[in-house]
This record gives sequence, C-alpha cells and structure tokens, in this order.
Amino acid sequence: MKPFPLLMKFILERSAKLFSKQEIVDRSFRYTYYDAYKRMCKLANAIKDLGVEEGDRVATLAWNTHRHFELYWTVPCMGAVLHAVNVRLHPNQIVHIINHAEDEILFLDDDFLPLVECLIDKLKTIKAYVVMADEEKKLRTALKPAYWYEALLEGSSSDFKWPYLDENSPATLCYTTGTTGDPKGVCFSHRMLFLHTLITALPEALSINRYDIVLHIVPMFHVHSWGIPYVATMVGAKQVFPSRFDIEAIMELIQREKVTVTAAVPTVYIMMLNHPRADEYDLSSLRLAFSGGAPTSPGLIKAFREKFGVQLITSYGLTEACPILTKAHLKPHMLNWPPEAKDAFYSKTGLPLPCLDLRVVDEMGREVSCDNKSIGEVIVKGPYVALGYYKDPDKTAESWDEEGHLHTGDMAVVDEEGYITIVDRRKDVIKSGGEIIPSVLIDKIIEQHPAVAYCATIAMPNEKWGERPLACVTLKPEYKGKVMEKDIFEFCKDKLPKWQIPDAVLFLEEIPMTSTGKKDKKLLRAKNVWMALSTVSKS
Amino acid sequence: MKPFPLLMKFILERSAKLFSKQEIVDRSFRYTYYDAYKRMCKLANAIKDLGVEEGDRVATLAWNTHRHFELYWTVPCMGAVLHAVNVRLHPNQIVHIINHAEDEILFLDDDFLPLVECLIDKLKTIKAYVVMADEEKKLRTALKPAYWYEALLEGSSSDFKWPYLDENSPATLCYTTGTTGDPKGVCFSHRMLFLHTLITALPEALSINRYDIVLHIVPMFHVHSWGIPYVATMVGAKQVFPSRFDIEAIMELIQREKVTVTAAVPTVYIMMLNHPRADEYDLSSLRLAFSGGAPTSPGLIKAFREKFGVQLITSYGLTEACPILTKAHLKPHMLNWPPEAKDAFYSKTGLPLPCLDLRVVDEMGREVSCDNKSIGEVIVKGPYVALGYYKDPDKTAESWDEEGHLHTGDMAVVDEEGYITIVDRRKDVIKSGGEIIPSVLIDKIIEQHPAVAYCATIAMPNEKWGERPLACVTLKPEYKGKVMEKDIFEFCKDKLPKWQIPDAVLFLEEIPMTSTGKKDKKLLRAKNVWMALSTVSKS
Repeated sequence: MKPFPLLMKFILERSAKLFSKQEIVDRSFRYTYYDAYKRMCKLANAIKDLGVEEGDRVATLAWNTHRHFELYWTVPCMGAVLHAVNVRLHPNQIVHIINHAEDEILFLDDDFLPLVECLIDKLKTIKAYVVMADEEKKLRTALKPAYWYEALLEGSSSDFKWPYLDENSPATLCYTTGTTGDPKGVCFSHRMLFLHTLITALPEALSINRYDIVLHIVPMFHVHSWGIPYVATMVGAKQVFPSRFDIEAIMELIQREKVTVTAAVPTVYIMMLNHPRADEYDLSSLRLAFSGGAPTSPGLIKAFREKFGVQLITSYGLTEACPILTKAHLKPHMLNWPPEAKDAFYSKTGLPLPCLDLRVVDEMGREVSCDNKSIGEVIVKGPYVALGYYKDPDKTAESWDEEGHLHTGDMAVVDEEGYITIVDRRKDVIKSGGEIIPSVLIDKIIEQHPAVAYCATIAMPNEKWGERPLACVTLKPEYKGKVMEKDIFEFCKDKLPKWQIPDAVLFLEEIPMTSTGKKDKKLLRAKNVWMALSTVSKS
Repeated sequence: MKPFPLLMKFILERSAKLFSKQEIVDRSFRYTYYDAYKRMCKLANAIKDLGVEEGDRVATLAWNTHRHFELYWTVPCMGAVLHAVNVRLHPNQIVHIINHAEDEILFLDDDFLPLVECLIDKLKTIKAYVVMADEEKKLRTALKPAYWYEALLEGSSSDFKWPYLDENSPATLCYTTGTTGDPKGVCFSHRMLFLHTLITALPEALSINRYDIVLHIVPMFHVHSWGIPYVATMVGAKQVFPSRFDIEAIMELIQREKVTVTAAVPTVYIMMLNHPRADEYDLSSLRLAFSGGAPTSPGLIKAFREKFGVQLITSYGLTEACPILTKAHLKPHMLNWPPEAKDAFYSKTGLPLPCLDLRVVDEMGREVSCDNKSIGEVIVKGPYVALGYYKDPDKTAESWDEEGHLHTGDMAVVDEEGYITIVDRRKDVIKSGGEIIPSVLIDKIIEQHPAVAYCATIAMPNEKWGERPLACVTLKPEYKGKVMEKDIFEFCKDKLPKWQIPDAVLFLEEIPMTSTGKKDKKLLRAKNVWMALSTVSKS
C-alpha cells in the first residue's frame, strides 16, 4: 500500500475542526477559523466554476488580507497551484512571470487595478480576473472578464471535498526577486510545503503554538510569507492580517490585538524604532520577533530590546528553500550570558533547522573550519529545498550540483558552536590578490561611522590585485558635504586589516535597492560607478 | 529528480554536529552527543562485521540505557531493522516474536542472560549474541557465539558512512503486547519514524526543546519509548537514562539532574505519590509530565500537582501508530479556569495531533455527535500510522478498512471542543438490550469507593438482555471482608443510571494484568469468572 500522502488538506481539515472558534483579524474585520473554512470551500467551488483544473496556476496580486489567506489554503488544497506575485517587481517583470507561469486566473486587490489595466494586453494566459474589494462599487474596471470575489463566494456552495492528490503534486509557485537577473520560478509540491510547515513549527524554529497571536508582516507575496500563515493555522493560533503595509497600523495592531509573534525584514524594525510616535505604543506582548531577509545588526537587536522590551531573533532563508533554513537561538549554556554577548549570537545567521543537510564549503566542496574566519559558500539539500528552477534547466544547472545540493551564492563563516554568519553574496565578494574580502563586512564597519547612512562596498577592477574594494556611501542629511574620503579611511584604520580597507570612497545620493529592500550591488557594478572617481587606484 | 528522502540519519548527523557537547546520563555514567555519535559509528561497523545487511533484523532485550540508545539510532540508520523486544512478555511470546521477526543478532543486557539461556534452543534465527554489560567478567554464558558489546566497539573504526536509503525502507519492528492474542508485528519505515519524530516534537505535542532535560521512563522496549529518544536527540536536549526500572532511582534522577520533561504510565506516577519517602524528593524541576498507556484520572492529576507541583498531561497512542496520536492540552480560553476544571481536560484522551485523520465513528462509519455521550470507535490514518501487520494479512484485514483507516478497537466520546475520551475497548463494551455500557466508566466510579483498590467490569451472559455488567473488585487490605456487594450497589445508586449498575459484584484477591500493566479483562472473561457467583442474574 502507498504511504499516507503529505497533503496540505490534512493540516487544514484538522484545524478547521479543532480550532473552529479561533479568531482571524484583518484590520477591523474579524471572523473565525470556521467561517474562513466555509469560505474556502465556497472559493474552491467558485475557482472550479471558472474552469481551473488540477495543476492549473492561479495568480494573486494582493496584500496581507483574509482573502489572500483564503487563497493560500484553497488553491493548493483543491489541486491548483498558487502563484503569489510580488507586487513590488517592475511591471515588465510582473508580465514576464505571469506569462512564464502561464497563470490562468488572476486574483487582485482593488489597489492593483490601475497597474493590471496597463498590462492587460501583455498578459497572454489570464482567462479571468477576480477583484478583491470590500465593496462591489469599486469594481469599475477595463479588465475582462472581471468578477467580484464576494459575489463569487456568495453564489457558491460551501460543500467541497478536497481531492486526494499525489503528494508530489505542485502546490505553489514562487519567483525569486531577480536580484541577479530575471526572476526565476521555484515550484513547491504538497510534500515540500507540508514538511516546511512541520519543520518550521518546531520549538527549534518558529515555535508558534495555539496560545499565540501571530501578526503577518512579511508580505504574502514573499515566499509563502515565510510559511508562517501555514504554521499558524496548523497550531490553531489567532492570526492578524494588516492588509497593505503601514508601519503605524502595524504598531497599533500589535498593541490592540496583543500580538505575541511576528516576523519581518530588519527595515521594518528600524522603522518602528525610528517612528516619531514609537513611545506611544506598547509592543511588550511580543514574545518573539523574527528578523530575516537581510543581516540584523547586534545594535538593532539591543535598541529594540531596550526600547520595546522585545527580543529580535535572526532567521535566514531563500526563495528556493520555501524559505526558512536557520534560526539564531541560543544554546543552553548561553542563557545566562550578559545581554550584549547574547545579541552577538541572536544577530548571527543561526543554526540550520532539523533535517537539513546544510554545509559551508570551500571551492573543493570541503566543509570550512569552524573558526568563524574561513569563508565558504552555503550549500543545502533538504526535505523542502527545491531541486531546480521551474522550466529553466540552464539556471538549474548553474545552481544545483550533481548530488542535489543547492549552491546558495551566500558566503559564510561558521563558529565553534556551529552558528553560521553570512558575510557576503558570492558575486559581491572581492577577490584581491588571491584573498577573499567579504564586502558586507566592510559595509557593516563603515556603517558604524556616525555620518554614514548606508555603505555598499563593491569590487572594482585593479591591474595588480585583480579586484580592490570600493565603498559607495550615502551620508545622513546633516552630514552631507562634511565628511571626506580620508575620514572614512581614518575610521577604518583600526577596524580592518590594511589590505581590506577600500581603495576609494564614492559618495552617492542614493544606494540602489532591489524590490525586497536589499542593496543592489549588481546594479552598482554594472554602472561601473568607479569611473566617476578621479583616481581609480591608489595601490 | 526524486524528492529528498526522509531518513533518520539526517536528524542524527545534524544533532551530532550542532549539539556535540550536550550531555547524556545513564545513572552514574556520563558522556556527550559527540561521544555517543562516535560509538554509534563504531557500533555500525561492528554490526556490519557480524554479517548484518540492509533489511536484516537486529533484536534487543534491554533496559533504558545509553547502549540501548546507541542501538536505537545505529540500527535504523545503517539500514538494518531494530526490534526492541518487550522483556515483560511471557518467554514463549518472546520466542515467538524473535522467530517471527527472523532476528539475526540479539543484543541483551546481562540481566537477561538467564532468560535467554533457557530459550536458546528455540531461537531459530539468531546468529550472534551481544551482551551489554559494564564489565567483561559478567560475560560467562552458554550463549554462542557471544560477544561483549564494549569489546566489539573497541575493535571497530569510528568512520562510518550512513547509507542513502529509500525512505520507505524498514527502520523498526515493534510487536503489540498481545492483550488480545499473540503479539502482532508492526513495521515502521524511515519515513514514518521521521514524521513521527517531527510531528510529536511540535509545540502541539511533546514540545521538547534544547533547554530541556528529558528522563526516559517509558521502557525502550515499548514502541520507541513513545518516540521520545528520537525527539530529544533531534532538538538537542540533555537525556537521562535510568537503566532498569526502580522508582527510587527515578525520583533521585529527577532531583539530581533537574529533569524538566518525562513520560510514563499512570502507575508510575501513582508509585511516586505513594512512595513512603516521597516528601524527601524535589520534583519541581519537571515542567511537563506526560501520562499515557492507560486512563489518567483527574484525581491523580490533582494529587500529583498538589504534592509535587507538577502538571500531568494525558497522551494516547498505540503500537500501530508509532505510537502517539493525541495530547490533552488546553485551549487558550481554558487557561484561566480553576484547577479542577482544567484537570478534567488534562485527564481526557485529548486532541488529535496535526496531520492525522482521526475520527470517532459509529458502526455505519459516520462521525458521532460531539456531545460527550455518543460512543463510537476511534479510527485513524496518518503519516506514521501503520497500514498493516507484519507478515499477517488476516489480522491486517481485521483491523484496517479499505480506505486505510486503522480501527483501533478503542471506544470513545467526543466533546464540543473536539476532545476525545476513551471510554472502553471495543471488546470490553457491554451490550445490554441493544444499549452500549462502557465498562471503563463503571470501573472508574466503583474505584472512587474508599474501600476499592481496583475494579474490572466485564460482560456476563444474560438470557434476557444479552449481556449484563459484572464488577470484579479487589479491596484495599484494610477493608477486606468488611465491604459487601450491597455496599457497592448502594455506592453506585446515584452515580450511574439504574440499567448500567452491575448485576453482581465479585470480590477477587487480584485482577489479572497484562505485561503493560493494563487490566486483562479478556482473561477474566475467558475464565468465566461469573460461574463463581451464587446467583448469575438478578434481572
């Protein structure tokens, strides 16, 4: 007999039954797991009536709402494939990925009507548009055929039998943000999503339980909102959706709903800290706040703890990994350490989650020494890590080796305790005279200078050394014109070995950012920004 | 490409790497995860040298020791199949299951040398005996060939590459205790054991984390010691093994090692409560104590909390289910209830764990009403629930239906919140005039009588009603001869509906027990104990 298939419907059905009275909040709207489940059944019937069959792709362009949550469960459980489109991509990229995915239906928040109306001629596969708005009157649109989400549900039966699929059936399709080229698609099966949900729910990982109140800050168009809506549903936690991103609304929701767990990129926590009315909000109900998607500094962790009494913990993931791979929690013997010593560990990339085969390896594939110095690339294989890109054998061959390890392109060190710290992207590493200089390390140090807002260090060509570091710096408004290259050199002198100090500093008005808020070093390099320097090399 | 296989080795390898310094205690012996892992590699080489190949069965007859723990991981991870034999079975049953499993090697504690020496002529498949003793001199035995565990390790390399198996390869073989006939074998694959480890590690279930200190009281020859050694290893908890069962040693270990989590049958907790020196032990480090394998009364839960300050929580499982299926934890709105109201829920069978398809159904297969009254049978299907008995298609056909649900034979009610309470075994239920009388319910009530030690109510034949209840009762020593049948009837009068009150009370010196400490009602029925009554029926 075939093993019991790992299908998302088994998680959903149990939660609908056991936690039927548990609450789901979407700004001022409230309903229960029971209500949501009934609407998911109606939604499944409605989507089926639109002609969607098993394996067909269903796209969304939406914020973090209860309707998006309904789609999160309904589309995979009915056997279709959920493609949550990153609304922050360039319109051309949005067109590219919807066509590449061959999406059949597009569910969109009314916020995105103007955007999609401009793209309509280029979207080749969409057969129907479903607009998610509170009121029907917002539905004046050139899109055809267009339906109102609430009307579709209204007209559908709440009886639906979720199919008994093969566990390797596709459940979701996520695209990378295209930091390094066109977005690439990653398809996750029911089995992978199920295992990601189980493993990230462990006390070793998100550790969310039924007593928690979870606020979904990570956009639902970013790799399953880090999988948190699935975990929260499985354990029966109360869930809070903030709709479109608004830092004040988020702080208000944390206070009003007594949120206990959330996750976000560091930028969001920095926005909370720097908010002019930060003192007016009580965020102390938060017992866990995960920070990921970009390095989280010990300084941010300290400031957040001191201001709000909330512990930030770093987590790390990748689109290709569903996404969570590590968590930076402490080992038992560290629990009594002083706060600063703890922060140093909370800000690391962390320890690999259970069941993963995650290693940091040199160019020969050997694991690097656990000395917190030797730099290698993070490679990983595991129950929920993709084995290739969607319809893209060439890119697959570039990133996966013969043994099935994904080469992440993230360069890292490992300490004696096994904690990993990512020090750079492989493509951003500077190779100077045969030695590796991690650009992120230089960024971190220069960003400690009181005048510096951001620093993005990149490689510039050098005849003698191959490459040498160039620091691209933006200054805080009050320091503009008051800080010179020599001040930066002086600042670095006792903080970096001489050969790692940048050869030049370029003061820019702005550092280009990707759609997920990361420094776009690729663009800086592509622009040959060093041509703007009067002296290209001092070495 | 094939999905990443769910193999136990991935859990083991990560824990050996990340938690290398974590401690494992076996009474006065201490070592680390690192040491244990090195010994597992040696053990794998040693077992291979004894001629064991992938798929071969390796049996153990052993207490809860660090050596048994080494076998727990080594045997499955090297591709062989671990068969931990229940040392409390009748010798004939031990012979039966070792022959039925076709075990090739038998690892035994020196305690069991006399037993095995008596059975040697009947064990048809064992090719080698490995004796687990601290000292070689204890190894004078008639068993041939016999090896000393420590010498085998001494002579083996600590380099071993765990094979990359198919996830459906067999990992362990467990036999039921044969409450209802000969023990039946259940084979668990790597995939099933892996998923049981993941799911029972959730905050929804055992919720063990790396800060915990876990004491293994559940015998390791009982269905993977409820899976706890695997979970504890995965999360990197400190583990404590008490060796052979000794209630004083257990209480001392809890106090000395500051144990935070344990699990046991209710009998063990009753022994702790009633121990003459109970007051001398501080058990308050325990944050979680699971009680399973038999019903746990609210009275026991209350007494344990009041005496030791420790919360008992019921959990329920089955050999066929690897074994854990439910946990009786509270929902958020119950947290502020008064202690007695909480105890009533902590003593229920509980809520099904995530990912299980567990139902309580009537004879037509329809789910019973959630009214806490309608009785049905627990049926279950899930990622780690077996799909049949080992080499036994007939017994398989008796217990599994066409949709793959295991019919557990446990009769239960479900309350409005979805909590299940097992009220009887299907075979113990009394069918009186078309109505079901759950025998366990009557037992519980009569056991509240201050003079009663145990009560086992069984069906006795009745011409008019088909069956009628007979209460078999043992009295506490001080009450012997002082309590009559009429006192029991009187006691039941306002506690049971008239038609559920037993027709007769039979006072026995002893209630027969199975090897797992459950009342053996089958034996009572088989003996036709009611023939001892002067009047067979009063109805």
